Amino acid sequence: MCGIVGISATVNVNQLLFDALTVLQHRGQDAAGMVTLDDGRFFLRKDNGLVKDVFRTRHMKRLSGTSGLGHVRYPTAGTSSSAEAQPFYVNSPYGIALAHNGNLTNADDIKQSLYESDLRHINTHSDSEILLNVFAHELAKEGRHKPLAEDIFNAITGVYQRCEGGYAVVAMINGHGMVGFRDPHGIRPLVYGKRESEQGTEYMFASESVALDALDFELVRDVAPGEAIYIDEQRQLHSHQCVPGKLTPCMFEYVYLARPDSSVDGIFVYQSRLRMGQTLANKILREWPDHDIDVVMPIPDTSRNSALEMATRLGLPYREGFVKNRYIGRTFIMPGQAIREKSVRQKLNAIGQEFAGKNVLLVDDSIVRGTTCEQIVEMARDAGAKKVYFCSAAPAIRYPNVYGIDMPTSEELIAHGRTDEEVGELIGADKLIFQDLEDLKKAVSSLNPAIEDFDCSVFDGHYVAGKIDENYLAMLASSRNDCSRQSDSDIIDLHNEGEL
Amino acid sequence: MCGIVGISATVNVNQLLFDALTVLQHRGQDAAGMVTLDDGRFFLRKDNGLVKDVFRTRHMKRLSGTSGLGHVRYPTAGTSSSAEAQPFYVNSPYGIALAHNGNLTNADDIKQSLYESDLRHINTHSDSEILLNVFAHELAKEGRHKPLAEDIFNAITGVYQRCEGGYAVVAMINGHGMVGFRDPHGIRPLVYGKRESEQGTEYMFASESVALDALDFELVRDVAPGEAIYIDEQRQLHSHQCVPGKLTPCMFEYVYLARPDSSVDGIFVYQSRLRMGQTLANKILREWPDHDIDVVMPIPDTSRNSALEMATRLGLPYREGFVKNRYIGRTFIMPGQAIREKSVRQKLNAIGQEFAGKNVLLVDDSIVRGTTCEQIVEMARDAGAKKVYFCSAAPAIRYPNVYGIDMPTSEELIAHGRTDEEVGELIGADKLIFQDLEDLKKAVSSLNPAIEDFDCSVFDGHYVAGKIDENYLAMLASSRNDCSRQSDSDIIDLHNEGEL
Amino acid sequence: MCGIVGISATVNVNQLLFDALTVLQHRGQDAAGMVTLDDGRFFLRKDNGLVKDVFRTRHMKRLSGTSGLGHVRYPTAGTSSSAEAQPFYVNSPYGIALAHNGNLTNADDIKQSLYESDLRHINTHSDSEILLNVFAHELAKEGRHKPLAEDIFNAITGVYQRCEGGYAVVAMINGHGMVGFRDPHGIRPLVYGKRESEQGTEYMFASESVALDALDFELVRDVAPGEAIYIDEQRQLHSHQCVPGKLTPCMFEYVYLARPDSSVDGIFVYQSRLRMGQTLANKILREWPDHDIDVVMPIPDTSRNSALEMATRLGLPYREGFVKNRYIGRTFIMPGQAIREKSVRQKLNAIGQEFAGKNVLLVDDSIVRGTTCEQIVEMARDAGAKKVYFCSAAPAIRYPNVYGIDMPTSEELIAHGRTDEEVGELIGADKLIFQDLEDLKKAVSSLNPAIEDFDCSVFDGHYVAGKIDENYLAMLASSRNDCSRQSDSDIIDLHNEGEL
Amino acid sequence: MCGIVGISATVNVNQLLFDALTVLQHRGQDAAGMVTLDDGRFFLRKDNGLVKDVFRTRHMKRLSGTSGLGHVRYPTAGTSSSAEAQPFYVNSPYGIALAHNGNLTNADDIKQSLYESDLRHINTHSDSEILLNVFAHELAKEGRHKPLAEDIFNAITGVYQRCEGGYAVVAMINGHGMVGFRDPHGIRPLVYGKRESEQGTEYMFASESVALDALDFELVRDVAPGEAIYIDEQRQLHSHQCVPGKLTPCMFEYVYLARPDSSVDGIFVYQSRLRMGQTLANKILREWPDHDIDVVMPIPDTSRNSALEMATRLGLPYREGFVKNRYIGRTFIMPGQAIREKSVRQKLNAIGQEFAGKNVLLVDDSIVRGTTCEQIVEMARDAGAKKVYFCSAAPAIRYPNVYGIDMPTSEELIAHGRTDEEVGELIGADKLIFQDLEDLKKAVSSLNPAIEDFDCSVFDGHYVAGKIDENYLAMLASSRNDCSRQSDSDIIDLHNEGEL
Repeated sequence: MCGIVGISATVNVNQLLFDALTVLQHRGQDAAGMVTLDDGRFFLRKDNGLVKDVFRTRHMKRLSGTSGLGHVRYPTAGTSSSAEAQPFYVNSPYGIALAHNGNLTNADDIKQSLYESDLRHINTHSDSEILLNVFAHELAKEGRHKPLAEDIFNAITGVYQRCEGGYAVVAMINGHGMVGFRDPHGIRPLVYGKRESEQGTEYMFASESVALDALDFELVRDVAPGEAIYIDEQRQLHSHQCVPGKLTPCMFEYVYLARPDSSVDGIFVYQSRLRMGQTLANKILREWPDHDIDVVMPIPDTSRNSALEMATRLGLPYREGFVKNRYIGRTFIMPGQAIREKSVRQKLNAIGQEFAGKNVLLVDDSIVRGTTCEQIVEMARDAGAKKVYFCSAAPAIRYPNVYGIDMPTSEELIAHGRTDEEVGELIGADKLIFQDLEDLKKAVSSLNPAIEDFDCSVFDGHYVAGKIDENYLAMLASSRNDCSRQSDSDIIDLHNEGEL
Repeated sequence: MCGIVGISATVNVNQLLFDALTVLQHRGQDAAGMVTLDDGRFFLRKDNGLVKDVFRTRHMKRLSGTSGLGHVRYPTAGTSSSAEAQPFYVNSPYGIALAHNGNLTNADDIKQSLYESDLRHINTHSDSEILLNVFAHELAKEGRHKPLAEDIFNAITGVYQRCEGGYAVVAMINGHGMVGFRDPHGIRPLVYGKRESEQGTEYMFASESVALDALDFELVRDVAPGEAIYIDEQRQLHSHQCVPGKLTPCMFEYVYLARPDSSVDGIFVYQSRLRMGQTLANKILREWPDHDIDVVMPIPDTSRNSALEMATRLGLPYREGFVKNRYIGRTFIMPGQAIREKSVRQKLNAIGQEFAGKNVLLVDDSIVRGTTCEQIVEMARDAGAKKVYFCSAAPAIRYPNVYGIDMPTSEELIAHGRTDEEVGELIGADKLIFQDLEDLKKAVSSLNPAIEDFDCSVFDGHYVAGKIDENYLAMLASSRNDCSRQSDSDIIDLHNEGEL
Repeated sequence: MCGIVGISATVNVNQLLFDALTVLQHRGQDAAGMVTLDDGRFFLRKDNGLVKDVFRTRHMKRLSGTSGLGHVRYPTAGTSSSAEAQPFYVNSPYGIALAHNGNLTNADDIKQSLYESDLRHINTHSDSEILLNVFAHELAKEGRHKPLAEDIFNAITGVYQRCEGGYAVVAMINGHGMVGFRDPHGIRPLVYGKRESEQGTEYMFASESVALDALDFELVRDVAPGEAIYIDEQRQLHSHQCVPGKLTPCMFEYVYLARPDSSVDGIFVYQSRLRMGQTLANKILREWPDHDIDVVMPIPDTSRNSALEMATRLGLPYREGFVKNRYIGRTFIMPGQAIREKSVRQKLNAIGQEFAGKNVLLVDDSIVRGTTCEQIVEMARDAGAKKVYFCSAAPAIRYPNVYGIDMPTSEELIAHGRTDEEVGELIGADKLIFQDLEDLKKAVSSLNPAIEDFDCSVFDGHYVAGKIDENYLAMLASSRNDCSRQSDSDIIDLHNEGEL
Repeated sequence: MCGIVGISATVNVNQLLFDALTVLQHRGQDAAGMVTLDDGRFFLRKDNGLVKDVFRTRHMKRLSGTSGLGHVRYPTAGTSSSAEAQPFYVNSPYGIALAHNGNLTNADDIKQSLYESDLRHINTHSDSEILLNVFAHELAKEGRHKPLAEDIFNAITGVYQRCEGGYAVVAMINGHGMVGFRDPHGIRPLVYGKRESEQGTEYMFASESVALDALDFELVRDVAPGEAIYIDEQRQLHSHQCVPGKLTPCMFEYVYLARPDSSVDGIFVYQSRLRMGQTLANKILREWPDHDIDVVMPIPDTSRNSALEMATRLGLPYREGFVKNRYIGRTFIMPGQAIREKSVRQKLNAIGQEFAGKNVLLVDDSIVRGTTCEQIVEMARDAGAKKVYFCSAAPAIRYPNVYGIDMPTSEELIAHGRTDEEVGELIGADKLIFQDLEDLKKAVSSLNPAIEDFDCSVFDGHYVAGKIDENYLAMLASSRNDCSRQSDSDIIDLHNEGEL
C-alpha cells in the first residue's frame, strides 16, 4: 500500500504536497518522496523515513514550482517487491516523473520486453520504474514534439494494454501537464478535486479524499477504472475513457486501509465500518442468540467504530479496555545479547477493572497472522476476564494480496487452510466470530449500489486482474522471503533517481 | 511536566530505561536523556528530540551498567524555566547524577546562596542543576568517605529545608546507591516497584505506574511526600520520612497529564476520568434537565472515557465524530512567504454525517487558551451541527501553574477574569458547561479517601507550596515571555553536561 | 577542472575508485561521485564534499560491481556552468553512466536540439548531462539490441560532430562495456593503463597517470585526440580513431593543474616545471644580467621545483622562506558582525630571518587575480626584505578559459589590458618578470617534440576549439556572475540522478 | 601531543580561538574543543574531528564571551591515556574550565587521593580531568569568596606539589580570570602574548608562537617553568614563580613537533632545523669523507629544511624526488574481505628521473618504528637509485615518551636494543647515519645558551621528571596495548562534559 498525490496549482506546491503526504501517511510510513517542476526543471527529494523527517527546510527551498507529485511508501510484497522510494523520473521523452500505488502482476514480462524491444534499462526492483518506462515508451511512440491530450490518452491506452494488476498513477510531463489514471478494475483508489484561486482553477489527485479536505480542495469524483484525467499546462482538464473499465475496488480499503473520514468510490469509509459492526452484531444475534457477553471492546484504533456500533446493536456496554501506547520503542541489538521480541504488551495495556470477572467481546478489524490476537486474548485473561470472545469485522484472510498490499504469504496467514473454529482455538479465544463475506459485501455495497463487485481476493482467492496462478503465488512467496532476508541484513536497495 | 525513571537492576539497564522512557513519552516530547553507572564511570546521553531519535545504537552500546536514570522533558515555565536536558551530573562529592520533574519556586534564592556560601557555580537555567547542587552540598557536609543511608537521608532533609515548590527526584550516587524522593506536599507523582531476578530483587522508580507495568515490575506503592527511598549498592531498600509530609497531589495529573492506565497516589486515572464524566453528567441533569442534546462526542484523545461515561449516564448515543490526524506536519518558512498558521483542521477532521442536523455535546478534558475550542466549535457547525454545546471535564483554568506544568500566563488563559458565560460566548458555543471544582475533588477523592486535598491552584489560585505572591507571578510571566522570544529566535541553551 | 576515472576489473572496484579519486583530489575538491555496475544494476553515490567525506562505509557496501566510474569536481565556469555532481545516468538505451572533465562551448545549441529533435529533457546545467544524452541518442540511433564496438565508435563519432570544446570522457554501457574518449584537440588529458590479474587483464582510464601508479596499473599511453578506447564486457580492448585529431593540450596542466609526478601527453610534469625554471632563469640572465638578487624563494607549493631549478641556474641560494598553513579555517558569519576577509597571512607565514636585509626573488607558478601576490610582496617586506622581486613561471594571464578551468572573467584578471610593468606596480614588487610564452612553449615541447602546439588561450586569447567570439565571452562572464550570486545565497542546484 | 590556547580579550573570542586552533592543528588532529565564558555562563563545544569539522555556525553562535580556552588533541599514550576531548569543566568552586598539553606520570596516585580525601569523582581516563580537580580542590582550600591573585598562585603551587610529569595548562575561573602555567621542568611549551585594543590590552596563551602571529598578538615571552601567569577579570597581568623551575624543554619539539615558524623557549624552530642539517652534514664529512652521494633528498615535509642545509654544506644538488599525496584515503572494511594495509606508496610517489642511476641520500627528521623508512628505501630503489643512503636529523629513538607524546612502546621502536648498523640493515639502506645526541644538543642550544639541558629521554632514556622506573614503563606499555585494542573495536570513551 502506498499513498500518492499530484497537484497542479497557481502557487508553489511544496507545502501543499507536504501537507497532503502527512495526511496520507497512514498509507505508508516507510519512505516519502516529492518531485516538483519549475521552469522546465524537475526537483526531486525522496528518502526512507516519515514525511516529517524526509523533508527539511533545505529541501523545501529547492522544491519550487507550481506543479508536483508526492508519494508515501509501504513496502509492497510481490514479485516486483521493492525498497525503492518514489517518484521516479526519466528524461526521455520530454522528462517525465511518476508515482503510483499498487502492483503489476506481469512486471517481469514487461521488464524483459522493455529491455529487448525498447532498449530501456530498469535499474531497480520497483514496478513504478517499469510503469514509468512503459508510459514513456508509449508516449515516445506518438513522437509529437508537443504532445496533445490525445497523445497522452493513446499512451495511457498502451499502458493499460501492457500492464496487468492493480495500480493508481499520477505522472507529470515536463512542459505539457499532469495525468492521473487507474487500472481497468479500479482496484486501487484515486480521486481528484479542484479549488478556485484568483489565477484560475487548481487541480489535485490523491489516493484518498481526506487529502483534498485538508487542503481545502473540493472532491469532484473518483477517477473511473480505465479512465485518464489530463490537466494540461494551462490547467485545462481533459478526461477520456481509454479502455472499458469494470469497478471492483479493493475491499480491504474499507476494512482497514483507508481513513474513516475518506470517501472511496462513493462510499464513506466511516459509514462502511458502522455497517460492518451492524451486520456482525446481526450475525451474533442470529447465530448465538443466547450469548453471555457482558461488554464490547475494540482493539484500538481501526475497529473502534465497528465495535461501538456492535455494542449499540447488541444493547451492551461499550468500553475501551485497552490503552494504546502512542510511542513505540525499538529493541537495540547489543553485542553478545539475544534479541528480545517486542511483545504486544509494549503496544497495548489493559485496564484491569474493565475485564475483572466479565465476559468480554473483543472486536478487531481483521485477523492476519493471528499472533497479536493470541497475545491480546491472553492479556484479557490476565486482566481478569472470565470469558474472552473475539470477533473480526472482516472474514478470515486466507489468500495473499497481489495488488499492492504488503501481506504475508499463505503459509503465514493463520486462517489459511483452517476452519474458523481452528483459528479460534489457536488464538485461545472462547469463541471466534468472523464476518461473513456476503454480509461484508452487502454492508459496503449498500452504501453505493453502483458497485457490483469488490476485489475480495484475500478472503476468497478470486483474483480479478492478471493471470494469478499457482506459479505466480509460489514466486511471490519466494520473493517475499528473499526480501525479508535482505531487510534482515539491513541492505537497502539503492534509488534509481536523484536527490536534492 | 516531565517524566523520570530510575532503575537499580542486575542486568544492563539501557534498554529498560529506553522502554520506560518510551512509555513515559507523553510526559515530555521535547528532550530525552539517560545516565548509567558502570564500574565507577557515568555514561550520559541527552539531547533534544523524542526518545526514539535521541538514542541510537552507538549511544546504547556505551550506556552500560546495571543502574541508571532517565528523563523526558516538557519545557517548564517559571522563573527557572530552561531548555536544558536532564539528567545532570556533578563530580563532587562522589559523583552524583540527578533527574527531576517539577519546579522550584525559590530557585533564584538558592542559586545565590549556592554561589556565595557553597562556592558552587550553576551554569544553566535548569532548576535540576540547582537541586543537584543542593543535594551534593548537603551530602558533602556529611563528609563521610563511605556515606551511610542516614547520611543520604540527612542530605535529603537538607534539600527539603532549602527547596520549595513541587518536585519528584531520582538520583544516583557513584559507588553508593540510588535515591528517590518527593516534595513534602507530594505535588508531582513518583512510584516505585520491584522485580525478582535470579540475582536478587531489582528496584525501579518512575513518574507513573505504567512504566513499571511495561517492564514487568510490580508496583509497591507511591513514594510518600517528604519521604526518601534509598536503594544501596547491594540493592537493599531503606526508607525514611525525612520531614513531615501532607499529600496534596496535582489535580491536573488526573484531568490530563497522566496516562489512563496509570495509578497515581492510589487512584486509577482511568477510573477518575469515568467519575469526572459521571459528575459532569449529573450537573447537566441537575442544572439543565430539559436539555436537547442528541449525541455526545469526545474531542480525542484524553476526554474519550469521560465522554463515554457521560453518554451512558445521560442515556444518549456516543459517537466519535472527530478523526484525529496521527501525523502532524509542520509549516516551512520559505523566503518571502508569509507564515501560515497550522489550524485545528490539520489535527482533526469532522465526520459530516454525525453532525448533520444534530445538537451535539462536545466533551474536552479542559480548556486552556480556548483558541482550539473555538475552531472545533466552528468545525462542528461547518459539519452541519444544529447546536453545539461544549463541556469541560475540569473547571475553568484561571491561574498559572508554578509546579512544573508548562501553562500560559494568566493573560493567555481564556477563563482568566471571565465568567463561564463569557468564555462560552468567546468560543462560540451555544452553551458551555464546566465541571464544578467541588464535584471534581469529590469525584477523584472518592477513589482514595486518604487524600484530603489536591493542588488545584490552576482552578482556584490557592498555591499549597512556596511563597507565591503577585511578585512571583509577575516575574514568572515576564520570564515566560523571555523564553518564548528566545525560542522564536531559535537560540537553544547549552547543556551543562556531557554527551557520549 | 575535474578528475575522472574508469575501471574495468575482475574484482570489486569501489575501493580502487575511492583510492584513485583520492589521488586525483587536487583536480577538484568541490564534489565527488562514483557509479558501479553489478549484475545489470547501477549503484550511484555522489555529493558535495571531499572524497573522504562523500563515501562512507554504508555507501561503499552498496557500490558493488567489477566496473565503475569516478569523478571529482571543481566548479566549471562557462555558459553551462553547474553545481551538479557527476557521474550522470540515463536509462535509455541500455542504461548508460558517464563522467567528464571539460566544457562544451556549444552546450546551449545542443541542449535545444536534444529537446526539439530527440525529445530528451536536460534537467541540470551540467554539460555532462548534455554529453551523456548526445552519446545516448547517437547510440540509440544505431538501434542494435547488442551493440558492437563499431556501434560504440559510430556513436562517439556522432558526439565529436555535435560537441565542441574541450572534454575527456569515461562512460559505461550496461551489459556492454566501458569507453574513454577525448575531444579532437586533446585539450583535456586522459590516459589509460592495464594490470594483469589471475582472471585476466584489467583496464583503467584516468585524468592523470598518478592514479594508475597508486593502483599499480601500468601506463599504456595517452588516449589520442578524436580517438575512442572501448573495453567490452569480456575486457577486450578496441580502439578507433573516430575523427582526425590534432593534439593541442592545455598548457595550464603543466603550469599548475597536474601533479608533478604525472605524465601528461608524454611529458613528465615535474620535468616541465624544471624546464620552466631554467628558461625563466635564462631570461633573467639575458635581460637583467646585473641583477642584485640574494636569494630565490618559492611561493609554496606548485612553484617549488621551478624555483629550485632557477636558483641552481642563477647560482643563488634557494630558501623556503614561507611556511604554508596546511589547515585553513573559515570565517563564521555571526549575527550583527561584519565579515572579515581571510588574508593570505592565514595561509602563509614568513620566516623573518630569511628575508631580513636581503633582495629576494619570489617565484610563483602564475598570476591570476594578483591580490594574493600583492599581499605576499607586502609580507616579504614586513619580514625585512630589502627588495622584493617577483617572477611567474607562466606568462601573464589575460584571457578567460573556456575549456573547463574555473578562471575569473577578463575584468578580474590583473594582467588583462595591462603591461607587465603595470602589473608589477600593482602588486608592489620592485620588479616583476613573466615567462615569455615562446620560452614556455619551447620548454615544454622540448620534452615531447610530437606536440606541435598547445592550447595557450589564457595567455594569447587564441581559442583552438569551438566558436569563441565576443558574444560567447560576454555570456560566459555574465553567467559566471549569476553563479556567484547563487552560491552566495547558498542555493545548491539539485542533482539529476540518484543516490544510495 | 596537544595544542592549547587561552584568550582574554575585549571582543568575542570564538573566531579568534577557532583561528588559533586551526594554526595549532598540526599538534593534534584527533579532537578539538572550545569553552567560552559569557556573563557567568560557560559555553562548551568539543568533539572528535578536525577543528573545521567540530565547530559549525550553530556552535559558534552560542560560544559567546570575551574570554575562552581552546584545545586540539593528539591521543596521548601512557597510563592515563584517554580518548576524551578537552577542555574540561567543574562547577565547584566558582566554575572552572581547563585544557592542557602533556602527561601526568603519577595520575593514578592522584586519582586515588582525590577520591579518598577530597571526595572528587574522576569520570574519565583523561589526566586533564585530574589536573582540573587538583587545581579546583587546592583553590577551594583557599576558601575565599572572591579569590585574589595570591590565592590562585597558592593553588597552582599545590598543583605543582601534587602533579608530576610534563604539562602546560590554561584555565579559566568564572568571575575571576584566566591562568597559564607550565610544569617545573618546562617540558611542554607555552608562550604568551598581548595585543592592544581600544578597550585595553588583550592577552593570549598558546602552545606555539605561530598562533600569536596569526592573530596579530605580539609574543611577550615563554612562560617559565614553575611560574604562573594570571590575567584577572580587569585584564591585569600578575605573574609569580610558584616553585623553583629548571628549564629542560622537550627536544622532540625542535626535531618534529613544532612548526618551523614557531619560537619555542627562545629558539626559532626553523633555525634549529637548519643547524641540525649542518651538524649532520659535518658528521658525514667527518666520518665518511670519501662518500659517493650524488644528490640529497628530503622525505617531505618536516626534513625539508635540514636536507636543504645538508645539501648546501655538502656541496651537493638538492632535489625533491618524493611527491607527497595531500589527500589520504581510508581503507573500507567490506564484509568478507581481508583488510589491506595502506602502504607508504599511497602517501608518497617517487619521481623516477631523479633517482635513476644515482646514489641518493634520503633525509628524514627521525626514525620511530622504521617500517615507513623501509618502504621508502624500497621505493627509491624501484625508482632506479643505484645506492640508497638514509640519514636522520635526530639520534636513534630507543625509549618511550612519558610526557605527552604518543610514541610506541619500546618493543615497537626499531632502534630499541639495536645498533645503528642493525637498524640500517633492517630498513635496507646501503648506509644509515643518525645525528649524534651531543651534536643535536649543541646545534639547538647554540641558539639559546640559556638552556642548559633538554628532555632527551626518547634518545637516552633519562627521564627528568617523575619517578619513571621499569614498573611504570611496563604499565605504560600494557595500557597502550589496551588502548589499541579498544580503538580497534571502535569503542569511543564518553565525554565527561557537555556540548552546545
